Amino acid sequence: MAEFFNVLPPAEARAHWLAQVTHRTGSAPDPVAIDRALRGGAAVMVQAAPSPEDLPAFQRSTVDGYAVRAADTFGASESLPAYLMVVGEARMGERPAVTIGPGQAALIHTGAMLPAGSDAVVMVENTEQAAAGEIEVLRRAAPGENVLQVGEDVRRGEPVLRPGLRLRPQDIGALMALGFGGAARAISVHRPPVVAIFSTGDELIPPDETPLPGQIRDINSFTISAQAAQAGAVADARGIIPDEPAALEAALRAALCPANAAEAADLVVVTAGSSVSVRDMTADVINRLAAALGGPGVLVHGVAMKPGKPTILAVVDGRAVLGLPGNPVSAMVAFWLFGVPALAHTMGVQPPFLPRTRATLTANLPSTAGREDYVPVLLAEGAAGRVEATPIFGKSNLIFTLVKADGIAHIPLNATGLRAGEDVDVYFL
Amino acid sequence: MAEFFNVLPPAEARAHWLAQVTHRTGSAPDPVAIDRALRGGAAVMVQAAPSPEDLPAFQRSTVDGYAVRAADTFGASESLPAYLMVVGEARMGERPAVTIGPGQAALIHTGAMLPAGSDAVVMVENTEQAAAGEIEVLRRAAPGENVLQVGEDVRRGEPVLRPGLRLRPQDIGALMALGFGGAARAISVHRPPVVAIFSTGDELIPPDETPLPGQIRDINSFTISAQAAQAGAVADARGIIPDEPAALEAALRAALCPANAAEAADLVVVTAGSSVSVRDMTADVINRLAAALGGPGVLVHGVAMKPGKPTILAVVDGRAVLGLPGNPVSAMVAFWLFGVPALAHTMGVQPPFLPRTRATLTANLPSTAGREDYVPVLLAEGAAGRVEATPIFGKSNLIFTLVKADGIAHIPLNATGLRAGEDVDVYFL
Repeated sequence: MAEFFNVLPPAEARAHWLAQVTHRTGSAPDPVAIDRALRGGAAVMVQAAPSPEDLPAFQRSTVDGYAVRAADTFGASESLPAYLMVVGEARMGERPAVTIGPGQAALIHTGAMLPAGSDAVVMVENTEQAAAGEIEVLRRAAPGENVLQVGEDVRRGEPVLRPGLRLRPQDIGALMALGFGGAARAISVHRPPVVAIFSTGDELIPPDETPLPGQIRDINSFTISAQAAQAGAVADARGIIPDEPAALEAALRAALCPANAAEAADLVVVTAGSSVSVRDMTADVINRLAAALGGPGVLVHGVAMKPGKPTILAVVDGRAVLGLPGNPVSAMVAFWLFGVPALAHTMGVQPPFLPRTRATLTANLPSTAGREDYVPVLLAEGAAGRVEATPIFGKSNLIFTLVKADGIAHIPLNATGLRAGEDVDVYFL
Repeated sequence: MAEFFNVLPPAEARAHWLAQVTHRTGSAPDPVAIDRALRGGAAVMVQAAPSPEDLPAFQRSTVDGYAVRAADTFGASESLPAYLMVVGEARMGERPAVTIGPGQAALIHTGAMLPAGSDAVVMVENTEQAAAGEIEVLRRAAPGENVLQVGEDVRRGEPVLRPGLRLRPQDIGALMALGFGGAARAISVHRPPVVAIFSTGDELIPPDETPLPGQIRDINSFTISAQAAQAGAVADARGIIPDEPAALEAALRAALCPANAAEAADLVVVTAGSSVSVRDMTADVINRLAAALGGPGVLVHGVAMKPGKPTILAVVDGRAVLGLPGNPVSAMVAFWLFGVPALAHTMGVQPPFLPRTRATLTANLPSTAGREDYVPVLLAEGAAGRVEATPIFGKSNLIFTLVKADGIAHIPLNATGLRAGEDVDVYFL
């Protein structure tokens, strides 16, 4: 059926996969998008809406001082000051009543509107009180000095935000400054993708049940849901599926192709069990669904990384389907490397920057060339402002290796390991 | 009244301030904390709850293969294999019905419980099918090989999480694995701090109104609310206060000392206007409140940084009060450097790691020794995996310099500037 690659490096595997994911979530005007973003939600701009106004809409002073006609101050110095009559004050929040004529000035505060006739502001530090109602200007002011010009922040018609950017506090501020938010000037945002998450495994029980011998509580539904929510998606954890092809096929079909097409998941994630047979079953089920619903099916089964090697990257009817290894650490690393970028891709936005720091290893880290390694590390402040990374060794299926860790160190594809004292990128998973 | 420092460096100013902030939000068991954290909320562990169980609770196989008695494989090799009778299968999710006696083995999959009598697992790759119901073991297995021991992930009684850690996806997973979440095993979390946010300025109007000449829409209430929400607080933006001492005093008093003491804000933020006179008024009002409600009042009025120099750090009755400069960029930088750590301090947790990257400057950045500078930059992929940072120059009161930026570059206190080609830390504000 589909072209099949074995153990590509993560970046190549991801690019090969996403190139064939054609489904997009689309976007729509959303009057409460800014409100959601304010509360830490995940609204993302869809398009560079043009600014409806100049910002600022009037000339504003950037200092405390006197609004003047710059020409009146030419040649002014401490030894030969210019004398100006103070004819009024530019009050905050209103159009100044006063007009500045030749030889005149008005008191002005930071942020106030320049009076008509003035074209510069002299800082109060560069003036002295002369006679009553008169000041000495001790330095010449250039035209426009200490003045914010109309449209200097943003001009009417200029794009307000870069498309596809997740709203940050400053972006929300800029939208507020332009009167966006609310129904009158609604912002068009990308619909957050819905991620259907399945855990497979006959050994799994929900966390609120008490395990019998041989049973363990489901972890992956929750770690992957939390990662998806962090990435701006709506996590829809649909529970535990037994290790039977028919049950898995029915569950995946319901997620990808429900009776109401509008309820189809935008990304389907299945933690594909721990044993080889269950992973092969998952790949088979995905390929059967691709044959029925549209392909291309499984594109990658195995990635050159540790943990996370048995990851399955597939596309059914243009939608991304991600098969994660069953062990919780591998599942988290693989969702971070493949699921999070797939969510951005589906929204049509840039993948998020992955927070990281450079750190100096305190111990040797073995690896194998041709494979990327991700190793949990503890971070500590070292000498001279350096950050030190101490590996946490332990079997890669122990969730507590990640719980104890501050981040995961990345050993590049072609390194045969890193030595104590070498620098490494540590990501904040 | 209070000891008064002028223009301390940011780190010293912050330490001096927080040392005198004695108020804490406290903590309580919260049955829905994990649920909130799952949806991207801000639950934070209060204490290292001891693990109620061993994890795993039974010996599990980490590979697909055969459960054996290790002693039966001693000396086994490709040329001299050990022969074992396969007496059954360890099925997933249940206590195996079979017991392994001398010379016997059982089929087992990754994650399944070891049958009684067995103490190691031989990977299927190291076996061959012999006669019906018999396998050849081609390599000796050490006792415990390919077996996850009881309590190897976490032991009963061991602390589950580090105290004061914000719940990450892996922490949620670990709690689920131990049956936490829900009322039966509720987690005690820090109460999120409530931040009362005031904007002052006669020129300000709410964003949904249309400005008259001289008026501008309030930005700071929204940018600071969004930053506070990101930091895990509950933002309570209480609107615009006119530039009058009585109005400001009444507003701050209501936030710090309401009729119902339980409704007092945990942190009070006032964007202290743009002009010197308004900032001085703010400091005076804070000191009057400290005299009435408890001090020590204003501790820092001016920090050695740009933007953000006119920041006010104060304490009233043990609670942090933060006066931010009026211009939106200065306000955001100052809230990030002072408000976000104050929130962590009030919760009694470690301040969050600030996401950053090292980047190479593409242009010279001037600065002044004795001052920290924060300069908006654009980031781009450079040669050889380097990140390049290009400064966005513009007046520091233009919100769009931050909107256009990918991050802010930090010029350290004692640098007199940085040159193109030098490396710099870029923070993701």
